[in-house]
Amino acid sequence: MGSTIRELSTEQGSSPFVVLVRPQMGENIGAAARAMLNFGLEHMRLVAPRDGWPNSSATALASGASGVLDHAGVFPDLGAALADCDYVYATTARSRDLVKPVLTPETAMAEARAMIASGKKVAVLFGPERAGLENDDVSHANAIITVPVNAEFYSLNLAQCVLLTAYEFARLGSDAPGMRLELAGADMATGIEVQKLGDHFEEKLEAAGFFHPPDKAPVMKLFLRNMYTRWSLTRGEVQALHGILRKLVRRD
Amino acid sequence: MGSTIRELSTEQGSSPFVVLVRPQMGENIGAAARAMLNFGLEHMRLVAPRDGWPNSSATALASGASGVLDHAGVFPDLGAALADCDYVYATTARSRDLVKPVLTPETAMAEARAMIASGKKVAVLFGPERAGLENDDVSHANAIITVPVNAEFYSLNLAQCVLLTAYEFARLGSDAPGMRLELAGADMATGIEVQKLGDHFEEKLEAAGFFHPPDKAPVMKLFLRNMYTRWSLTRGEVQALHGILRKLVRRD
Repeated sequence: MGSTIRELSTEQGSSPFVVLVRPQMGENIGAAARAMLNFGLEHMRLVAPRDGWPNSSATALASGASGVLDHAGVFPDLGAALADCDYVYATTARSRDLVKPVLTPETAMAEARAMIASGKKVAVLFGPERAGLENDDVSHANAIITVPVNAEFYSLNLAQCVLLTAYEFARLGSDAPGMRLELAGADMATGIEVQKLGDHFEEKLEAAGFFHPPDKAPVMKLFLRNMYTRWSLTRGEVQALHGILRKLVRRD
Repeated sequence: MGSTIRELSTEQGSSPFVVLVRPQMGENIGAAARAMLNFGLEHMRLVAPRDGWPNSSATALASGASGVLDHAGVFPDLGAALADCDYVYATTARSRDLVKPVLTPETAMAEARAMIASGKKVAVLFGPERAGLENDDVSHANAIITVPVNAEFYSLNLAQCVLLTAYEFARLGSDAPGMRLELAGADMATGIEVQKLGDHFEEKLEAAGFFHPPDKAPVMKLFLRNMYTRWSLTRGEVQALHGILRKLVRRD
Protein backbone atom coordinates (compact mmCIF):
# COMPACT_ATOMS: atom_id res chain seq x y z
CA MET A 1 0.00 0.00 0.00
CA GLY A 2 2.65 2.45 1.05
CA SER A 3 4.58 1.72 -2.09
CA THR A 4 1.45 2.21 -4.16
CA ILE A 5 0.95 5.61 -2.62
CA ARG A 6 4.54 6.67 -3.13
CA GLU A 7 4.45 5.54 -6.71
CA LEU A 8 1.27 7.49 -7.42
CA SER A 9 2.55 10.53 -5.59
CA THR A 10 5.73 10.88 -7.58
CA GLU A 11 3.57 10.30 -10.62
CA GLN A 12 1.06 12.98 -9.86
CA GLY A 13 2.82 15.77 -11.58
CA SER A 14 0.30 18.50 -12.17
CA SER A 15 -3.24 17.30 -11.60
CA PRO A 16 -5.39 16.40 -8.59
CA PHE A 17 -6.25 12.87 -7.47
CA VAL A 18 -9.81 11.91 -8.35
CA VAL A 19 -10.89 9.74 -5.41
CA LEU A 20 -13.99 7.60 -5.94
CA VAL A 21 -15.35 6.62 -2.53
CA ARG A 22 -17.14 3.23 -2.43
CA PRO A 23 -18.12 3.35 -6.11
CA GLN A 24 -20.80 0.83 -7.03
CA MET A 25 -21.13 0.14 -10.76
CA GLY A 26 -17.95 -0.68 -12.66
CA GLU A 27 -19.43 1.14 -15.66
CA ASN A 28 -19.47 4.37 -13.66
CA ILE A 29 -15.83 3.93 -12.69
CA GLY A 30 -14.95 3.49 -16.36
CA ALA A 31 -17.06 6.52 -17.33
CA ALA A 32 -15.32 8.58 -14.66
CA ALA A 33 -11.93 7.58 -16.10
CA ARG A 34 -13.04 8.73 -19.55
CA ALA A 35 -14.35 12.00 -18.14
CA MET A 36 -11.02 12.61 -16.40
CA LEU A 37 -8.82 11.84 -19.38
CA ASN A 38 -10.79 14.20 -21.63
CA PHE A 39 -9.22 16.98 -19.60
CA GLY A 40 -5.87 15.41 -18.91
CA LEU A 41 -6.52 14.14 -15.38
CA GLU A 42 -4.88 10.72 -14.98
CA HIS A 43 -4.66 10.04 -11.27
CA MET A 44 -7.59 8.04 -9.91
CA ARG A 45 -7.86 6.45 -6.50
CA LEU A 46 -10.55 3.96 -5.50
CA VAL A 47 -11.77 3.43 -1.96
CA ALA A 48 -13.43 0.05 -1.32
CA PRO A 49 -15.09 -0.39 -4.73
CA ARG A 50 -18.25 -2.45 -4.15
CA ASP A 51 -17.51 -5.11 -6.75
CA GLY A 52 -13.81 -5.44 -6.02
CA TRP A 53 -10.88 -4.63 -8.28
CA PRO A 54 -9.97 -5.02 -11.08
CA ASN A 55 -13.45 -4.73 -12.57
CA SER A 56 -14.01 -5.91 -16.17
CA SER A 57 -17.07 -3.68 -16.63
CA ALA A 58 -15.00 -0.67 -15.70
CA THR A 59 -12.21 -1.61 -18.11
CA ALA A 60 -14.69 -2.29 -20.91
CA LEU A 61 -16.36 1.09 -20.61
CA ALA A 62 -13.13 3.03 -20.11
CA SER A 63 -11.71 1.62 -23.37
CA GLY A 64 -9.30 4.34 -24.51
CA ALA A 65 -8.97 5.57 -20.94
CA SER A 66 -8.24 2.16 -19.38
CA GLY A 67 -4.71 3.35 -18.66
CA VAL A 68 -6.22 5.56 -15.93
CA LEU A 69 -7.69 2.43 -14.33
CA ASP A 70 -4.47 0.44 -14.72
CA HIS A 71 -2.63 3.04 -12.66
CA ALA A 72 -5.45 3.66 -10.18
CA GLY A 73 -4.58 3.12 -6.54
CA VAL A 74 -7.01 0.95 -4.56
CA PHE A 75 -7.42 1.51 -0.83
CA PRO A 76 -9.45 -0.18 1.92
CA ASP A 77 -10.55 3.09 3.50
CA LEU A 78 -10.54 6.82 2.84
CA GLY A 79 -7.86 7.52 5.42
CA ALA A 80 -5.39 5.32 3.59
CA ALA A 81 -6.29 6.87 0.24
CA LEU A 82 -5.61 10.38 1.55
CA ALA A 83 -2.54 9.58 3.64
CA ASP A 84 -0.15 11.51 1.36
CA CYS A 85 -2.52 14.32 0.38
CA ASP A 86 -2.01 17.90 1.53
CA TYR A 87 -5.46 19.26 0.75
CA VAL A 88 -8.80 17.51 0.15
CA TYR A 89 -12.04 18.64 -1.46
CA ALA A 90 -15.31 16.76 -1.02
CA THR A 91 -17.95 17.09 -3.75
CA THR A 92 -21.47 17.06 -2.41
CA ALA A 93 -24.78 18.57 -3.43
CA ARG A 94 -26.44 18.43 -0.03
CA SER A 95 -25.83 21.25 2.37
CA ARG A 96 -23.99 19.99 5.42
CA ASP A 97 -24.14 20.62 9.12
CA LEU A 98 -20.37 20.25 9.02
CA VAL A 99 -18.63 23.62 9.10
CA LYS A 100 -16.49 23.77 5.98
CA PRO A 101 -15.89 26.31 3.25
CA VAL A 102 -18.26 25.58 0.34
CA LEU A 103 -16.74 26.42 -3.04
CA THR A 104 -17.78 26.33 -6.67
CA PRO A 105 -15.78 23.95 -8.91
CA GLU A 106 -14.22 27.05 -10.47
CA THR A 107 -12.93 28.50 -7.19
CA ALA A 108 -11.83 25.13 -5.87
CA MET A 109 -9.89 24.18 -8.99
CA ALA A 110 -8.23 27.60 -9.06
CA GLU A 111 -7.03 26.91 -5.51
CA ALA A 112 -6.02 23.39 -6.45
CA ARG A 113 -3.92 24.66 -9.35
CA ALA A 114 -2.08 27.06 -7.08
CA MET A 115 -1.44 24.38 -4.45
CA ILE A 116 -0.30 21.78 -6.99
CA ALA A 117 1.96 24.35 -8.62
CA SER A 118 3.67 24.78 -5.26
CA GLY A 119 4.22 21.05 -4.91
CA LYS A 120 1.18 20.13 -2.81
CA LYS A 121 -0.88 16.99 -3.41
CA VAL A 122 -4.59 17.70 -3.85
CA ALA A 123 -7.47 15.21 -3.85
CA VAL A 124 -11.12 15.56 -4.84
CA LEU A 125 -13.61 13.10 -3.33
CA PHE A 126 -16.66 11.78 -5.15
CA GLY A 127 -19.24 9.67 -3.30
CA PRO A 128 -21.13 6.49 -4.21
CA GLU A 129 -23.66 6.80 -7.05
CA ARG A 130 -26.84 6.86 -5.00
CA ALA A 131 -26.07 8.05 -1.51
CA GLY A 132 -23.13 10.35 -2.16
CA LEU A 133 -20.53 11.09 0.48
CA GLU A 134 -21.40 10.52 4.14
CA ASN A 135 -20.49 12.95 6.89
CA ASP A 136 -17.64 10.65 7.93
CA ASP A 137 -16.20 10.96 4.43
CA VAL A 138 -16.66 14.73 4.31
CA SER A 139 -14.93 15.06 7.67
CA HIS A 140 -11.69 14.09 5.87
CA ALA A 141 -11.99 17.11 3.59
CA ASN A 142 -10.65 20.63 4.02
CA ALA A 143 -13.39 22.12 1.90
CA ILE A 144 -16.59 21.25 0.02
CA ILE A 145 -17.21 21.63 -3.71
CA THR A 146 -20.84 22.15 -4.70
CA VAL A 147 -21.80 22.53 -8.34
CA PRO A 148 -24.28 25.41 -8.58
CA VAL A 149 -27.27 23.76 -10.20
CA ASN A 150 -30.92 24.49 -10.80
CA ALA A 151 -32.51 24.52 -7.33
CA GLU A 152 -35.52 22.66 -8.73
CA PHE A 153 -33.62 19.96 -10.61
CA TYR A 154 -30.43 18.15 -9.78
CA SER A 155 -29.45 14.97 -11.64
CA LEU A 156 -25.69 14.98 -12.16
CA ASN A 157 -24.30 11.45 -12.20
CA LEU A 158 -20.87 10.42 -10.95
CA ALA A 159 -19.10 10.76 -14.30
CA GLN A 160 -20.73 14.15 -14.92
CA CYS A 161 -19.54 15.49 -11.54
CA VAL A 162 -16.03 14.25 -12.35
CA LEU A 163 -16.34 15.78 -15.83
CA LEU A 164 -17.23 19.25 -14.57
CA THR A 165 -14.43 19.19 -12.01
CA ALA A 166 -11.87 18.02 -14.57
CA TYR A 167 -13.17 20.57 -17.08
CA GLU A 168 -12.70 23.41 -14.60
CA PHE A 169 -9.20 22.26 -13.69
CA ALA A 170 -8.23 22.15 -17.37
CA ARG A 171 -10.07 25.37 -18.30
CA LEU A 172 -8.29 27.41 -15.63
CA GLY A 173 -4.96 26.10 -16.81
CA SER A 174 -5.37 26.79 -20.49
CA ASP A 175 -3.63 30.06 -21.28
CA ALA A 176 -5.69 30.21 -24.45
CA PRO A 177 -8.91 32.18 -23.87
CA GLY A 178 -11.66 32.15 -26.48
CA MET A 179 -9.73 33.19 -29.51
CA ARG A 180 -10.50 32.89 -33.21
CA LEU A 181 -8.25 30.05 -34.28
CA GLU A 182 -9.60 29.54 -37.77
CA LEU A 183 -10.02 33.20 -38.55
CA ALA A 184 -6.50 33.87 -37.36
CA GLY A 185 -5.29 31.07 -39.58
CA ALA A 186 -7.45 32.05 -42.52
CA ASP A 187 -6.04 33.82 -45.59
CA MET A 188 -7.59 37.22 -44.95
CA ALA A 189 -7.89 39.81 -47.71
CA THR A 190 -5.60 42.84 -47.48
CA GLY A 191 -6.95 46.38 -47.19
CA ILE A 192 -6.20 47.18 -50.82
CA GLU A 193 -7.99 44.02 -51.98
CA VAL A 194 -11.10 45.02 -50.06
CA GLN A 195 -10.90 48.57 -51.44
CA LYS A 196 -10.68 47.25 -54.99
CA LEU A 197 -13.70 45.04 -54.34
CA GLY A 198 -15.54 48.14 -53.15
CA ASP A 199 -14.46 49.99 -56.32
CA HIS A 200 -15.72 47.11 -58.45
CA PHE A 201 -19.08 47.14 -56.67
CA GLU A 202 -19.41 50.91 -56.97
CA GLU A 203 -18.57 50.84 -60.67
CA LYS A 204 -21.15 48.17 -61.44
CA LEU A 205 -23.79 49.65 -59.16
CA GLU A 206 -23.19 53.10 -60.60
CA ALA A 207 -23.79 51.71 -64.07
CA ALA A 208 -26.91 49.94 -62.84
CA GLY A 209 -28.32 53.15 -61.40
CA PHE A 210 -28.21 51.84 -57.86
CA PHE A 211 -27.12 55.12 -56.25
CA HIS A 212 -30.40 56.97 -56.47
CA PRO A 213 -31.32 59.65 -55.59
CA PRO A 214 -27.91 61.27 -56.25
CA ASP A 215 -27.83 63.19 -52.95
CA LYS A 216 -28.12 59.86 -51.11
CA ALA A 217 -25.21 58.35 -53.04
CA PRO A 218 -22.43 59.33 -50.58
CA VAL A 219 -24.15 57.79 -47.56
CA MET A 220 -25.07 54.67 -49.56
CA LYS A 221 -21.46 54.27 -50.66
CA LEU A 222 -20.23 54.75 -47.12
CA PHE A 223 -22.66 52.07 -45.90
CA LEU A 224 -21.38 49.60 -48.47
CA ARG A 225 -17.69 50.36 -47.83
CA ASN A 226 -18.24 49.87 -44.12
CA MET A 227 -20.05 46.62 -44.81
CA TYR A 228 -17.16 45.09 -46.76
CA THR A 229 -14.64 45.90 -44.06
CA ARG A 230 -16.86 44.81 -41.17
CA TRP A 231 -17.17 41.38 -42.77
CA SER A 232 -13.37 40.92 -42.48
CA LEU A 233 -13.37 39.10 -45.81
CA THR A 234 -11.06 36.26 -46.68
CA ARG A 235 -9.14 36.37 -49.95
CA GLY A 236 -11.35 33.57 -51.28
CA GLU A 237 -14.49 35.52 -50.48
CA VAL A 238 -13.17 38.61 -52.25
CA GLN A 239 -12.46 36.54 -55.36
CA ALA A 240 -15.92 34.96 -55.17
CA LEU A 241 -17.57 38.37 -54.91
CA HIS A 242 -15.66 39.69 -57.93
CA GLY A 243 -16.78 36.61 -59.83
CA ILE A 244 -20.38 37.13 -58.75
CA LEU A 245 -20.32 40.75 -59.89
CA ARG A 246 -18.88 39.89 -63.29
CA LYS A 247 -21.40 37.10 -63.82
CA LEU A 248 -24.44 39.08 -62.71
CA VAL A 249 -23.86 42.13 -64.86
CA ARG A 250 -22.74 40.34 -67.98
CA ARG A 251 -25.31 41.01 -70.65
CA ASP A 252 -25.85 37.94 -72.81
CA MET B 1 -44.41 24.88 -37.70
CA GLY B 2 -44.61 28.65 -37.73
CA SER B 3 -46.80 28.59 -34.67
CA THR B 4 -44.38 26.25 -32.93
CA ILE B 5 -41.59 28.69 -33.59
CA ARG B 6 -43.55 31.66 -32.34
CA GLU B 7 -44.58 29.82 -29.22
CA LEU B 8 -41.02 28.77 -28.43
CA SER B 9 -39.67 32.21 -29.21
CA THR B 10 -41.89 34.06 -26.80
CA GLU B 11 -41.08 31.33 -24.31
CA GLN B 12 -37.35 31.56 -24.65
CA GLY B 13 -36.82 34.27 -22.12
CA SER B 14 -33.25 34.04 -20.95
CA SER B 15 -31.51 30.92 -22.24
CA PRO B 16 -30.28 29.61 -25.61
CA PHE B 17 -32.03 26.99 -27.71
CA VAL B 18 -30.31 23.62 -27.53
CA VAL B 19 -30.74 22.22 -31.04
CA LEU B 20 -30.11 18.48 -31.44
CA VAL B 21 -29.47 17.79 -35.12
CA ARG B 22 -30.57 14.34 -36.33
CA PRO B 23 -30.22 12.74 -32.86
CA GLN B 24 -30.21 8.95 -32.94
CA MET B 25 -30.85 7.28 -29.56
CA GLY B 26 -33.89 8.46 -27.61
CA GLU B 27 -31.90 7.83 -24.42
CA ASN B 28 -29.38 10.46 -25.47
CA ILE B 29 -32.14 12.99 -26.12
CA GLY B 30 -33.47 12.34 -22.63
CA ALA B 31 -29.99 12.59 -21.13
CA ALA B 32 -29.46 15.90 -22.95
CA ALA B 33 -32.71 17.22 -21.46
CA ARG B 34 -31.50 16.28 -17.97
CA ALA B 35 -28.13 17.90 -18.60
CA MET B 36 -29.87 21.10 -19.73
CA LEU B 37 -32.28 21.34 -16.83
CA ASN B 38 -29.49 20.91 -14.27
CA PHE B 39 -28.41 24.39 -15.30
CA GLY B 40 -31.80 25.89 -16.02
CA LEU B 41 -31.84 25.52 -19.81
CA GLU B 42 -35.34 24.54 -20.92
CA HIS B 43 -35.56 25.22 -24.64
CA MET B 44 -34.77 22.21 -26.80
CA ARG B 45 -35.29 21.87 -30.53
CA LEU B 46 -35.04 18.61 -32.44
CA VAL B 47 -34.15 18.34 -36.13
CA ALA B 48 -35.26 15.12 -37.82
CA PRO B 49 -34.81 12.77 -34.83
CA ARG B 50 -33.95 9.33 -36.27
CA ASP B 51 -36.65 7.41 -34.41
CA GLY B 52 -39.40 10.00 -34.80
CA TRP B 53 -41.12 11.97 -32.08
CA PRO B 54 -42.35 11.62 -29.38
CA ASN B 55 -39.87 8.96 -28.26
CA SER B 56 -40.73 6.83 -25.22
CA SER B 57 -37.05 6.04 -24.52
CA ALA B 58 -36.28 9.74 -24.38
CA THR B 59 -39.17 10.43 -22.02
CA ALA B 60 -38.24 7.50 -19.78
CA LEU B 61 -34.65 8.62 -19.37
CA ALA B 62 -35.51 12.30 -18.97
CA SER B 63 -37.85 11.50 -16.07
CA GLY B 64 -37.77 14.70 -13.99
CA ALA B 65 -36.73 16.68 -17.04
CA SER B 66 -39.47 15.36 -19.34
CA GLY B 67 -41.03 18.82 -19.33
CA VAL B 68 -38.13 19.93 -21.52
CA LEU B 69 -39.10 17.24 -24.04
CA ASP B 70 -42.81 18.09 -23.84
CA HIS B 71 -42.03 21.65 -24.94
CA ALA B 72 -39.35 20.73 -27.48
CA GLY B 73 -39.92 22.00 -31.02
CA VAL B 74 -39.52 19.37 -33.75
CA PHE B 75 -38.41 20.44 -37.22
CA PRO B 76 -37.88 18.64 -40.54
CA ASP B 77 -34.63 20.46 -41.30
CA LEU B 78 -32.09 22.75 -39.69
CA GLY B 79 -33.21 25.78 -41.68
CA ALA B 80 -36.69 25.56 -40.21
CA ALA B 81 -35.32 25.07 -36.70
CA LEU B 82 -33.20 28.21 -36.96
CA ALA B 83 -35.67 30.41 -38.82
CA ASP B 84 -36.28 32.74 -35.86
CA CYS B 85 -32.73 32.67 -34.46
CA ASP B 86 -30.48 35.72 -34.51
CA TYR B 87 -27.18 33.97 -33.79
CA VAL B 88 -26.13 30.33 -34.07
CA TYR B 89 -23.23 28.37 -32.59
CA ALA B 90 -22.19 24.94 -33.89
CA THR B 91 -20.42 22.58 -31.48
CA THR B 92 -17.80 20.48 -33.23
CA ALA B 93 -14.51 18.89 -32.24
CA ARG B 94 -13.11 18.55 -35.73
CA SER B 95 -11.30 21.48 -37.25
CA ARG B 96 -13.09 22.74 -40.34
CA ASP B 97 -12.17 24.06 -43.70
CA LEU B 98 -15.08 26.44 -43.24
CA VAL B 99 -13.90 29.82 -42.03
CA LYS B 100 -15.69 30.61 -38.75
CA PRO B 101 -14.73 32.03 -35.40
CA VAL B 102 -13.79 29.13 -33.11
CA LEU B 103 -14.65 29.81 -29.49
CA THR B 104 -14.38 28.05 -26.16
CA PRO B 105 -17.70 27.26 -24.43
CA GLU B 106 -16.80 29.98 -21.94
CA THR B 107 -16.37 32.74 -24.52
CA ALA B 108 -19.33 31.62 -26.59
CA MET B 109 -21.73 31.50 -23.64
CA ALA B 110 -20.52 34.90 -22.45
CA GLU B 111 -21.43 36.26 -25.88
CA ALA B 112 -24.71 34.36 -25.86
CA ARG B 113 -25.64 35.90 -22.50
CA ALA B 114 -24.96 39.38 -23.82
CA MET B 115 -27.02 38.79 -26.95
CA ILE B 116 -29.91 37.14 -25.11
CA ALA B 117 -29.91 39.96 -22.56
CA SER B 118 -30.50 42.36 -25.43
CA GLY B 119 -33.44 40.34 -26.74
CA LYS B 120 -31.67 38.20 -29.35
CA LYS B 121 -32.48 34.53 -29.90
CA VAL B 122 -29.41 32.31 -29.72
CA ALA B 123 -29.13 28.65 -30.70
CA VAL B 124 -26.42 26.05 -30.06
CA LEU B 125 -26.22 23.09 -32.46
CA PHE B 126 -25.22 19.57 -31.39
CA GLY B 127 -24.66 16.88 -34.02
CA PRO B 128 -25.68 13.21 -34.18
CA GLU B 129 -24.00 10.89 -31.67
CA ARG B 130 -21.51 9.23 -33.98
CA ALA B 131 -20.84 11.48 -36.95
CA GLY B 132 -21.34 14.91 -35.39
CA LEU B 133 -22.36 17.94 -37.44
CA GLU B 134 -21.76 17.93 -41.17
CA ASN B 135 -20.40 20.91 -43.09
CA ASP B 136 -23.89 21.68 -44.37
CA ASP B 137 -25.05 21.96 -40.74
CA VAL B 138 -22.07 24.09 -39.71
CA SER B 139 -22.67 26.45 -42.62
CA HIS B 140 -25.84 27.59 -40.81
CA ALA B 141 -23.77 28.79 -37.85
CA ASN B 142 -22.17 32.15 -37.14
CA ALA B 143 -19.44 30.62 -34.99
CA ILE B 144 -18.05 27.31 -33.79
CA ILE B 145 -17.74 26.10 -30.20
CA THR B 146 -14.93 23.64 -29.52
CA VAL B 147 -14.38 22.24 -26.05
CA PRO B 148 -10.63 22.36 -25.35
CA VAL B 149 -9.91 18.72 -24.55
CA ASN B 150 -6.90 16.46 -24.18
CA ALA B 151 -5.37 16.28 -27.65
CA GLU B 152 -4.71 12.57 -27.15
CA PHE B 153 -8.14 11.61 -25.86
CA TYR B 154 -11.59 12.89 -26.76
CA SER B 155 -14.69 10.99 -25.72
CA LEU B 156 -17.38 13.50 -24.80
CA ASN B 157 -20.84 12.12 -25.54
CA LEU B 158 -23.85 14.19 -26.62
CA ALA B 159 -25.22 14.76 -23.11
CA GLN B 160 -21.77 15.70 -21.82
CA CYS B 161 -21.30 18.31 -24.56
CA VAL B 162 -24.71 19.74 -23.73
CA LEU B 163 -23.82 19.60 -20.03
CA LEU B 164 -20.60 21.61 -20.41
CA THR B 165 -22.35 24.21 -22.57
CA ALA B 166 -25.26 24.57 -20.14
CA TYR B 167 -22.83 24.67 -17.20
CA GLU B 168 -20.89 27.53 -18.77
CA PHE B 169 -24.05 29.45 -19.58
CA ALA B 170 -25.19 29.14 -15.96
CA ARG B 171 -21.75 29.69 -14.43
CA LEU B 172 -21.13 32.96 -16.20
CA GLY B 173 -24.21 34.64 -14.80
CA SER B 174 -26.14 37.45 -16.40
CA ASP B 175 -23.50 40.10 -15.74
CA ALA B 176 -20.76 38.16 -17.52
CA PRO B 177 -18.24 40.19 -19.50
CA GLY B 178 -19.93 40.54 -22.89
CA MET B 179 -17.25 40.59 -25.52
CA ARG B 180 -18.69 41.43 -28.94
CA LEU B 181 -21.27 43.69 -27.31
CA GLU B 182 -21.60 45.55 -30.59
CA LEU B 183 -23.14 42.37 -31.97
CA ALA B 184 -25.46 42.18 -29.00
CA GLY B 185 -26.64 45.70 -29.74
CA ALA B 186 -26.88 45.47 -33.51
CA ASP B 187 -30.10 44.72 -35.38
CA MET B 188 -29.01 41.32 -36.62
CA ALA B 189 -30.74 39.48 -39.45
CA THR B 190 -32.63 36.37 -38.37
CA GLY B 191 -31.83 32.90 -39.68
CA ILE B 192 -34.71 32.90 -42.15
CA GLU B 193 -33.68 36.31 -43.51
CA VAL B 194 -30.15 35.09 -44.18
CA GLN B 195 -31.47 31.86 -45.72
CA LYS B 196 -33.73 33.86 -48.06
CA LEU B 197 -30.80 36.05 -49.05
CA GLY B 198 -28.86 32.89 -49.87
CA ASP B 199 -31.81 31.64 -51.92
CA HIS B 200 -31.96 34.94 -53.80
CA PHE B 201 -28.25 34.78 -54.59
CA GLU B 202 -28.47 31.17 -55.73
CA GLU B 203 -31.44 31.91 -57.95
CA LYS B 204 -29.74 34.83 -59.67
CA LEU B 205 -26.37 33.11 -59.93
CA GLU B 206 -28.01 29.96 -61.24
CA ALA B 207 -29.66 32.02 -63.98
CA ALA B 208 -26.32 33.69 -64.70
CA GLY B 209 -24.60 30.34 -65.12
CA PHE B 210 -22.33 31.01 -62.15
CA PHE B 211 -22.37 27.43 -60.86
CA HIS B 212 -20.09 25.89 -63.43
CA PRO B 213 -18.97 23.16 -63.87
CA PRO B 214 -22.14 21.46 -62.49
CA ASP B 215 -20.20 18.97 -60.36
CA LYS B 216 -18.60 21.91 -58.54
CA ALA B 217 -22.00 23.53 -57.82
CA PRO B 218 -22.60 21.90 -54.39
CA VAL B 219 -19.26 22.99 -52.94
CA MET B 220 -19.65 26.47 -54.46
CA LYS B 221 -23.10 26.80 -52.89
CA LEU B 222 -21.78 25.58 -49.52
CA PHE B 223 -18.98 28.15 -49.72
CA LEU B 224 -21.48 30.96 -50.34
CA ARG B 225 -23.95 29.83 -47.65
CA ASN B 226 -21.12 29.64 -45.15
CA MET B 227 -19.98 33.10 -46.20
CA TYR B 228 -23.34 34.75 -45.50
CA THR B 229 -23.63 33.26 -42.01
CA ARG B 230 -20.00 33.95 -41.13
CA TRP B 231 -20.55 37.61 -41.85
CA SER B 232 -23.23 37.80 -39.13
CA LEU B 233 -25.24 40.14 -41.33
CA THR B 234 -27.31 42.96 -39.95
CA ARG B 235 -30.87 43.41 -41.18
CA GLY B 236 -29.79 46.53 -43.09
CA GLU B 237 -27.03 44.65 -44.85
CA VAL B 238 -29.41 41.90 -45.93
CA GLN B 239 -31.74 44.51 -47.41
CA ALA B 240 -28.85 46.23 -49.18
CA LEU B 241 -27.69 42.94 -50.69
CA HIS B 242 -31.17 42.12 -51.96
CA GLY B 243 -31.28 45.57 -53.54
CA ILE B 244 -27.87 45.09 -55.10
CA LEU B 245 -28.90 41.76 -56.59
CA ARG B 246 -32.11 43.15 -58.04
CA LYS B 247 -30.30 46.11 -59.54
CA LEU B 248 -27.40 44.18 -61.01
CA VAL B 249 -29.44 41.56 -62.84
CA ARG B 250 -32.11 43.87 -64.18
CA ARG B 251 -31.79 43.91 -67.92
CA ASP B 252 -32.39 47.43 -69.30
